[in-house]
Amino acid sequence: MALQKGDLVILQKGSKKYLLIIKEEIFHTHAGYLDLSQIEGKEYGDYILSSKGVPFYILKPTIFDLLMKIKRQTQIIYPKDIGYILLKLDIVEGKTVLECGCGSGALTTALAYFVGKTGRVISYEKKESFVEIARTNLKRFNLEERVVFKLKEVEEAFDEEEEVDALFLDVREPERLLFPAYRALKGGHPLGILVPTTNQVTSVLKGLEALPFVDIEVIEIFLRPYKLNPERFRPEDLMVAHTGYLIFTKKVKVKDGNED
Amino acid sequence: MALQKGDLVILQKGSKKYLLIIKEEIFHTHAGYLDLSQIEGKEYGDYILSSKGVPFYILKPTIFDLLMKIKRQTQIIYPKDIGYILLKLDIVEGKTVLECGCGSGALTTALAYFVGKTGRVISYEKKESFVEIARTNLKRFNLEERVVFKLKEVEEAFDEEEEVDALFLDVREPERLLFPAYRALKGGHPLGILVPTTNQVTSVLKGLEALPFVDIEVIEIFLRPYKLNPERFRPEDLMVAHTGYLIFTKKVKVKDGNED
Amino acid sequence: MALQKGDLVILQKGSKKYLLIIKEEIFHTHAGYLDLSQIEGKEYGDYILSSKGVPFYILKPTIFDLLMKIKRQTQIIYPKDIGYILLKLDIVEGKTVLECGCGSGALTTALAYFVGKTGRVISYEKKESFVEIARTNLKRFNLEERVVFKLKEVEEAFDEEEEVDALFLDVREPERLLFPAYRALKGGHPLGILVPTTNQVTSVLKGLEALPFVDIEVIEIFLRPYKLNPERFRPEDLMVAHTGYLIFTKKVKVKDGNED
Amino acid sequence: MALQKGDLVILQKGSKKYLLIIKEEIFHTHAGYLDLSQIEGKEYGDYILSSKGVPFYILKPTIFDLLMKIKRQTQIIYPKDIGYILLKLDIVEGKTVLECGCGSGALTTALAYFVGKTGRVISYEKKESFVEIARTNLKRFNLEERVVFKLKEVEEAFDEEEEVDALFLDVREPERLLFPAYRALKGGHPLGILVPTTNQVTSVLKGLEALPFVDIEVIEIFLRPYKLNPERFRPEDLMVAHTGYLIFTKKVKVKDGNED
Repeated sequence: MALQKGDLVILQKGSKKYLLIIKEEIFHTHAGYLDLSQIEGKEYGDYILSSKGVPFYILKPTIFDLLMKIKRQTQIIYPKDIGYILLKLDIVEGKTVLECGCGSGALTTALAYFVGKTGRVISYEKKESFVEIARTNLKRFNLEERVVFKLKEVEEAFDEEEEVDALFLDVREPERLLFPAYRALKGGHPLGILVPTTNQVTSVLKGLEALPFVDIEVIEIFLRPYKLNPERFRPEDLMVAHTGYLIFTKKVKVKDGNED
Repeated sequence: MALQKGDLVILQKGSKKYLLIIKEEIFHTHAGYLDLSQIEGKEYGDYILSSKGVPFYILKPTIFDLLMKIKRQTQIIYPKDIGYILLKLDIVEGKTVLECGCGSGALTTALAYFVGKTGRVISYEKKESFVEIARTNLKRFNLEERVVFKLKEVEEAFDEEEEVDALFLDVREPERLLFPAYRALKGGHPLGILVPTTNQVTSVLKGLEALPFVDIEVIEIFLRPYKLNPERFRPEDLMVAHTGYLIFTKKVKVKDGNED
Repeated sequence: MALQKGDLVILQKGSKKYLLIIKEEIFHTHAGYLDLSQIEGKEYGDYILSSKGVPFYILKPTIFDLLMKIKRQTQIIYPKDIGYILLKLDIVEGKTVLECGCGSGALTTALAYFVGKTGRVISYEKKESFVEIARTNLKRFNLEERVVFKLKEVEEAFDEEEEVDALFLDVREPERLLFPAYRALKGGHPLGILVPTTNQVTSVLKGLEALPFVDIEVIEIFLRPYKLNPERFRPEDLMVAHTGYLIFTKKVKVKDGNED
Repeated sequence: MALQKGDLVILQKGSKKYLLIIKEEIFHTHAGYLDLSQIEGKEYGDYILSSKGVPFYILKPTIFDLLMKIKRQTQIIYPKDIGYILLKLDIVEGKTVLECGCGSGALTTALAYFVGKTGRVISYEKKESFVEIARTNLKRFNLEERVVFKLKEVEEAFDEEEEVDALFLDVREPERLLFPAYRALKGGHPLGILVPTTNQVTSVLKGLEALPFVDIEVIEIFLRPYKLNPERFRPEDLMVAHTGYLIFTKKVKVKDGNED
């Protein structure tokens, strides 16, 4: 299928990747400049040559690629964590999911991607500059219509009239939003929380004990990258040691005192 | 929304979870028996009482829950790995994905769930008993119509006339299937591979060098679980040390000798 | 050098190891019984045959082997942690080291081993049954003369008239012993602490801030074991996910307000 | 005990540490210069002021500190690994240990420190510049008399007439030195090997199968550092992902075919 103006592509040379939109434009790289209009009519898997004759492969951007190319003002949630969140929060076509704290919009992007055209993401964020950058990212990825931003602090309650299918908190004091989250969520459905510190985890765990939530899980995910030489196969020298603790639970309507 | 006969639910008491279909049936547990027909008319988040008066919460099964409840004959691929695979292989509504080696069908289930009603999973597996168990799992989850099984060994080529959006290999000698995988895949699109041993990783890396594949990544993912007591917050004593090495790459049409 | 009655040996068959003293005794194993008097006159590296003709290799017990063969009533400190503790507390021949909380005596054993004949370990423990088991272990390893046990609770201060070279706390509330530890320790010398929970780490960190301690480090150590098949090289399936957090610091006489 | 000229001290301000010898010298730092002769007559735990009035604490250098201050031309073996090596190779006062491949001398330093005045380290190294830097390090730490360097390639055999208590290989192709190592080692005593790649591990495992070695262990050790703020307790952002794989085994005189 021939690529057209407006399509999103990855141009890759070695480990260097660029996420670009096909249009009449010259794009400069260390290996010479690229005439982006040359991509038109090519297909994914083809390449174009830079002004220095260096090939840049035209690749289909995956959601992983989009996440790695998020323009960021903040620490973003990493793919290793996002993949697990999708499974725990059950994010597929048609779901309505509420997130509080959009940051630069990495998780927002993934949620919008996976709820599809028939689903919806509601994103609360009190900081205007974060909403702007998240929106910019979503626009680049053609996902902005799936997201409703609410630029406000949440104190007592979220605004939604209908309960949502899943809810995610990425804020400094998530323990203060547990009751609003409880009220906004459908019965039996999942809540996820990301926090960087153990103090926050313990605050959340105490808060969850006081509300009708069950099936609590607290985990960390590590990703260990390897070098690619098959004659000297070994891990990379450095890795990310910490992004955050992930907490998951499910809402029940009332907690019966007879359970253990 | 009231639950009906045929609906899938999780019944949960403490950390014990049962994945059940609502019907006229008595289900026995250590905390007394459950009359499953009582669930009819209730909602997710409600509970029913066992014959001993113990509450069992009725929860919405997430794809994570389905994966944890896979009936298995083989080692399954874990959610920590599946989440990452979904992002790297770009598995959303409408995609066509081919897997080779279905095992008990854990990844098959996740792929079928995320490609949605308009997508399709093609699953090659040479062992009949594996196809049977995978099919049984998919039926329980109402996903069997999204999957086409091909009970055959792949030697020269996969059968598909149209190239697929993504491809995953979970077989003992994936290096032997790299060329068939190359041919079956759309240009610029992703291939994923899971192998348990470093010897297999090095064989795959050598194989990839000989074919037009770029953007190679080899990683491992760890999940570290924590105990839930906020007064004594600490990791669990034991964790899974290894499931497998994940390899990802993308097909290009030809490799140009001038790239680095 | 021929082995004699009273010598300590490891007898090993496959992955099964026994730590034994050479004497007139019959020792029963799943592979037949062993006449331990047969070891007399042999050398390390030789083997003896069981009553079923199965060879058991006679190996020199290392301190690692002793630690793995500690008789235990409690969770022991693991070699992965002990090795690091030795380096941080600078435990060599001639040192005087104080520990509080001996448990089953694993760390006590290692400390006694490394301070040598001219060094000394002072071990505070309030629970008599722990002292007994620790002493039993030390006797088996011929190290009991290097250790002085003090069967008492420490409230205000440790008893020592002379300051010690290093100090280690393995108790439930180490924050309560920071001032006694401070007073018992030589200026500029190291204090180590092991705690299983993050709540204890934060209590200790707050306590350390209030006293003249510098050069604080908090770490965790993981050990990942691998299977031994070179054709299928891969990690073991399970690993220990957590033993404890290690905290290290050094005493200074006074803290000057001008430092950063 | 008053410090004297020639003594080794750590001077520490915040997380900045200097390993210095007391003498008539001016030492420059970002926080002003230090007159090192002022340390004379002070004690560990005291401090001196820089020319800008900033306190630098005088701390006792532990073996851990020495290892962190190794002057290096090469990747050094890390304390997390060295601690475990000491336990597995049973390195205490009086032992004779042979290492092959001294690198910058980090392990050499630790071995020399722990074998004490009555023990000995024999260090084979074919590269003269490595011996020089290792010797420089040992001299700074007053340990040079405990080490004999042999500046030579080992092909057929090590030179020693008497078998050694422990042996460590840190070379590119340790599989080529397994037989020399076997011959140089006492029966029942331990051999350790460090290699960075899985290919080397499998070569060593194959080599060990062909020789009378038992009790094989292959492991990796990770160290995860934490930040020190008790109000926001969390791991550091980055960690070392890989230093090397550690292999340990013990020599037996002959292997009996009847063992499993």
